Amino acid sequence: MKEKLRIVKIGGNVINERKQLQSFLKDFSDMDSLKILVHGGGKRATELAASLGLQTKMIGGRRVTDEANLEIVTMVYAGLLNKNIVAELQANNCNAIGLTGADANTITAHKRIVKDIDYGYAGDVDSIENKSIELFLNNGIVPVFSAITHDKKGQLLNTNADTIASELAKGLSGNFEVELIYCFDKKGVLLDIDDNDSVIADIDKNKYEQLKADKIIAEGMLPKLENCFESLENGVKKVIIGMPELIRNNGMQHTSLTL
Amino acid sequence: MKEKLRIVKIGGNVINERKQLQSFLKDFSDMDSLKILVHGGGKRATELAASLGLQTKMIGGRRVTDEANLEIVTMVYAGLLNKNIVAELQANNCNAIGLTGADANTITAHKRIVKDIDYGYAGDVDSIENKSIELFLNNGIVPVFSAITHDKKGQLLNTNADTIASELAKGLSGNFEVELIYCFDKKGVLLDIDDNDSVIADIDKNKYEQLKADKIIAEGMLPKLENCFESLENGVKKVIIGMPELIRNNGMQHTSLTL
Repeated sequence: MKEKLRIVKIGGNVINERKQLQSFLKDFSDMDSLKILVHGGGKRATELAASLGLQTKMIGGRRVTDEANLEIVTMVYAGLLNKNIVAELQANNCNAIGLTGADANTITAHKRIVKDIDYGYAGDVDSIENKSIELFLNNGIVPVFSAITHDKKGQLLNTNADTIASELAKGLSGNFEVELIYCFDKKGVLLDIDDNDSVIADIDKNKYEQLKADKIIAEGMLPKLENCFESLENGVKKVIIGMPELIRNNGMQHTSLTL
Repeated sequence: MKEKLRIVKIGGNVINERKQLQSFLKDFSDMDSLKILVHGGGKRATELAASLGLQTKMIGGRRVTDEANLEIVTMVYAGLLNKNIVAELQANNCNAIGLTGADANTITAHKRIVKDIDYGYAGDVDSIENKSIELFLNNGIVPVFSAITHDKKGQLLNTNADTIASELAKGLSGNFEVELIYCFDKKGVLLDIDDNDSVIADIDKNKYEQLKADKIIAEGMLPKLENCFESLENGVKKVIIGMPELIRNNGMQHTSLTL
């Protein structure tokens, strides 16, 4: 039987608030399965860019990463945020190691091909190097990924953290029973977007098609769920969507996605 | 017989020049023994601080690290420099992993005790965690350390890169035959500080005492050599001092220190 591996992705909200982040990292440290943390950027990168007089250009919620902005996200994501998260986990006796895709060649990507929009140094993931990630997991070391990858030719690339989490989940599902947990600021997928208690507890592929047909799932959630079902179809056992507190509190509302 | 391990420390000069750094990293990738790279900061941290309107206060060549400066060195050393070095090594097929002391708890330190001068978040090393470093080395993964450690209580600390290199060398000398290589902008320890060709090829403990008595070793070199002999007395096999090119070119002048 495969060993259980939980991959938890946290985004901007929990990262921006120091107290909330500390509380989450304590809960994460207490999780007793094998685990990986993937973190997004939060607002610090945009703030640093502004302090340096740089414009941050976003298209469709995605950062356009020119050379100056690549330096900023490398500093903030892989340096400031990643290393403070690792130090805090170590304080909670979780033997974390902070990684980008370049470290031990864990995640290779290519610079996004320009079609209509040039996203600059944005990376689309090509492959996950299971061997070194499994070496860490099997030796009690907990990988903490920031959203930076590389192209194996010396170029760092800015990569969406949701994508890193799902690519890791798919890549590692051959040898582990992977549960992918996306933490964000809602309790889950909502029947009524204005009612945070209207969580849909379970969604399988059939129900998902029905919810789409009934136009119950809002636009922003569609690509996220599309991505989740793609992970499930590629070996991931279960995807969970909810607030960061769900990793501590089993009784907390959340959405569970399975095939 | 113990396996040979080379620990190479590079400082500001080679880091500041992109071409020189690329050339060095190619040479480092070609070294065929077990190896570890330790890198200092270079001028980028000071430049970033200046761009953000922060003062960088130095006392006796050492940075006074207040909270804002700690954020800057964490971003620049552990993020920008470390990850670009790792990506460049990966491009040269050297399976590098970028680390601070917090990562896999490799180096713990304590905030420097205030005597006359308060250096702020400066870390003095307490211990090296051999287990995870050896796990990397024995699995073909090459550690690349930036000059940041942690106190295991959640606090990152700015730590002198020379010290990190010598502490790693001492800590790992129990299981490896360690050669410690300090690269800087001179060809070695010089008889005449104004003549870069007046390299003293070999210095043992007796010769060192004699050079000190004759006041041939200049003031800036004294603490460096003191530190080197302390490493040798704690199990390190050999210390080499010279220019970065010496790792490629065996015939290049350098200073060899042994007991």
